Order: sequence, then C-alpha cells, then structure tokens
Amino acid sequence: MNNKYVHGYDPRENIRLQDQASTLVDLLHTDTFYPAGSSVLEAGCGVGAQTVSLAKNSPEAIITAIDISETSLAEAKMRVEAAGFSNVNFEQGDIFNLRFEPATFDHVFVCFVLEHLSRPVEALTALKKLIKPGGTITVIEGDHGSTYFYPDSSYAHRAVQCQVDLQKQAGGNANIGRQLFPLINRAGFIDVRVSPRMVYVDGSRPALIEGFTRNTFTAMIEGIREAAIEAGMIGRAEIDRGIKDLYRTAEADGVFCYTFFKAVAEKR
Amino acid sequence: MNNKYVHGYDPRENIRLQDQASTLVDLLHTDTFYPAGSSVLEAGCGVGAQTVSLAKNSPEAIITAIDISETSLAEAKMRVEAAGFSNVNFEQGDIFNLRFEPATFDHVFVCFVLEHLSRPVEALTALKKLIKPGGTITVIEGDHGSTYFYPDSSYAHRAVQCQVDLQKQAGGNANIGRQLFPLINRAGFIDVRVSPRMVYVDGSRPALIEGFTRNTFTAMIEGIREAAIEAGMIGRAEIDRGIKDLYRTAEADGVFCYTFFKAVAEKR
Repeated sequence: MNNKYVHGYDPRENIRLQDQASTLVDLLHTDTFYPAGSSVLEAGCGVGAQTVSLAKNSPEAIITAIDISETSLAEAKMRVEAAGFSNVNFEQGDIFNLRFEPATFDHVFVCFVLEHLSRPVEALTALKKLIKPGGTITVIEGDHGSTYFYPDSSYAHRAVQCQVDLQKQAGGNANIGRQLFPLINRAGFIDVRVSPRMVYVDGSRPALIEGFTRNTFTAMIEGIREAAIEAGMIGRAEIDRGIKDLYRTAEADGVFCYTFFKAVAEKR
Repeated sequence: MNNKYVHGYDPRENIRLQDQASTLVDLLHTDTFYPAGSSVLEAGCGVGAQTVSLAKNSPEAIITAIDISETSLAEAKMRVEAAGFSNVNFEQGDIFNLRFEPATFDHVFVCFVLEHLSRPVEALTALKKLIKPGGTITVIEGDHGSTYFYPDSSYAHRAVQCQVDLQKQAGGNANIGRQLFPLINRAGFIDVRVSPRMVYVDGSRPALIEGFTRNTFTAMIEGIREAAIEAGMIGRAEIDRGIKDLYRTAEADGVFCYTFFKAVAEKR
C-alpha cells in the first residue's frame, strides 16, 4: 500500500477517509457489500433502516430480512420498496427459532439487535448454524459508554446513563459495542475483526450536527425522558438540564463523540 | 474516489486502513510529512519521542525542536542522533517567549503539550505569530475521558480520574483532546480539521496490548499511584484494584479503547 497515493503530501490533505463520512450510513455501511448471487440473512431488520443500505450496496445479492415483529416488518417492506429495491425477501421469525436449514446462508448481517437481547452469545450461536462454512457474520452495535462531548456536563452524562439503565432493566446492554470481540469469539466464530467507527462531530460538520448529535442521539435521550422520570431514576429538572447540555454540544464551538463497533467474523 | 479499489469486495477485507495501525506511531504520525526545504517548528519536543517520527517522515524538511527543559532537550538530541537523523536543530525556549521573528516557519507541530498548559489558547496564539501566512499547525492531544474498556470497572475509571484530577491541580487538562476544534479556532486559525485517532485494542492486536494498554496507558496510571494516594484522592486498596482491573482488560478477552485527536489548521 503506497501511503503517498492515499494521503498526498500536503498536511492539509492528510485527513483520513473515515473522517469524510458525512452521514451515519457512510460510516457504518459503505464497506459492506456482498457478491452477486450470494444469499444474505439480515437478522432483526426492524423497520428496515439498515435493509435499504444492504439492498443498495449489494444489488445482486439475495437478501432475506427477518424480524420478530410483523408491524416492523411491514414498515421495512414498505421502506425498501419505496427506495426501489426488489432484492429483499421479508419474513417473520425469531432469531432463536428460525425455520431455515443449517448452512442456508453465505452471510449474516446483524445491526443494532444484540444490544436488546439478554442472551447475545446464544443469538450469535443460533445464527452461526445458519451460515455456510467459510461464510461471514457482520455485527454492528453502538456503545453509549463511548459518549463524551464538549462542553462537558455531568447532567448530560447522567441523562445518557438513564438510557443505559432503562435498557439494562429491559434485559439489554447499551454498552455492548466494546464487547463484540469477546462475544463473537465465545459464539465460536473465527478470525473476528472489529473496526470501531467513531462519530466525531464539530462545527465543521453541519450534516452530523443535525443528523447525529441533535436528531439521532439527543432525540433518543429525549425519547426516554418520561420513562426515566417515571422509573425514579432522575429528577425532571436534572434530565432537562442534561438534555439542554447535550443540545449545547451541537453549537458552533461544541464537540460530540460517539463510537459504533463493526465486527466481521468467519464461520469455520 | 472509487470505493471498490480501496476496500475490495470481500467483507473480510473490508477493515479500514486505520484499523491496521499496529503502533501508536503509525496511528498518530503516518500522515504527517512536510515537503523538502520547508521549515518546521516542533514546540515542546520533550525527550524527543515524536521528534524521531517527524525527522523520519520528513527527511528533507528543516526541523527546529524546542523545549523549556534543557534536560529533556539533551535526551531528545541523543535520541534523534541515535536514530541516525541530522535534520533537527535543538534549542531551549519557552513557547510563550520564543526568540524567532514572526513568520519564521512554514509549519508548526505540537504534540502532547497543550494538555499541560493552563493557557492553551495563548500558547496557540503565540505559535501562530511564528507561522508564515498559508502555513499550518498540527496539534495532537489525548483525552482521558475517552477511556473505556471491557470488562468495565468503576475502580479502573476512578484510577484514571485520579490522573485527570492531578493534571488539573497542576494547571493542565487531561481531557483536552475533544476541545481542539474550539481551542484552535479561538486562537484565530482557519480551516481547522480534526481527525480522531482511536486506539482500539482487543485480543487480536497483541502489539497494542503490550505497547499501549499495558506499557503506555496502565503504566502511566501506575506512575501516579503514590501521588494520588498522597493527595488523598483515593485509597491504596481502591487504586490498586483499579490498576489490576486495567491490566485485566489486556487479557485475551479484554478490550481497551482510547482516543487521540489530531488537528491541522491554517494560518490566514
């Protein structure tokens, strides 16, 4: 690999490709594409937010998207059709009890699913059975413990912690991203490779200020405001201050950092 | 930019260049090189840990390395000479009172210096005067608030916080990395571009386990053990547990995350 070709010689040009991702889709999905004719299972497609990227990046792969919720599945189907893709089959199913024969798929893709499961290793093991030998699994998860920002604020950190605690009460783990390496190894995959995908947002990245800091992350924390107060985790004034301080990080001199983890591993 | 050329088509090959950095030097310095004949000031070279990389990557640039400490400077000189480089001039000086004429240098390089200063914007402003119009400044700083790991441990987080608190008492800021964008803007530079450099360490990266988790980060926390206990910040048993838990993250199923921030900006 010739460094000079990639980076140029001018220090102002030496900013990494990764820094140029202007949307979350770029950051997480740009490097996921499957060959023509390969069969891919998306396990837990939800409302299809990632399915659209999968279908777009791998137009000649045959994608099967499953979800436990019929309602989500209907929305996912609508979304993928609206985007003009016809290479996805949708069907209802539970990750722990899918109807497929062993070694049905070339590849499995799981995004923002393990964080909600109390038995992530068992889920990975169940999915492994469905992969052909030599096939791969791709797993993407966030990690709320990777959140930090400027100006710093203990209120904002406490508001984020409410989301972590609520998810824990529901049996999940909002800090699962950092654990992908041991989890996927424990499920018996080989050649586990984890690639952190840090979202770094400052005043020079307006698309991420709007698309991530405000409308994804802070909106999510705002979304658990009532539940956290009702659960007695935090006072109304405290969480409101935390949310206000999160929005403050989206101003021109603010900075917001969050990291997703993307893992690819092979089935022996 | 043709994605396919960069990434290949096999999902197992789709791990980013950045993930391949096996040492801190790769991660931080690979993309810093200055053209032949350009004059570069390294402000605060310390014992020359970064000076060697600068000299190596920019063999035809003329580098001036300054530090306030004669002792450090002597060590830096020895280190650079031992590495076989002769393109660095060393001289003693205080960043706030350097003897150089305005607009002397094409580029300025500052690494792990601002974190120790109580007036980082003033330091940047003083350095800006020494840069020719159109020249650049490169700033690299860590951020201890970016530290997280698996297995998680509140003791380990408290031990890290001791380092943050000690550095604060000394007038510095161990969480300065996230602030580079606003600080450099405040000093009046233009086109400020920040590139986070995350060190992600898991069992598949033995060089980083040894070189970073154990011998850089955890050794640093061990190094402030006595000072933290003496300052009454933490109990002996507590910090020892924290250090033990940090070493635990360096085992085969552990994960350690830390982020440096590298910024490049231009003088108008």
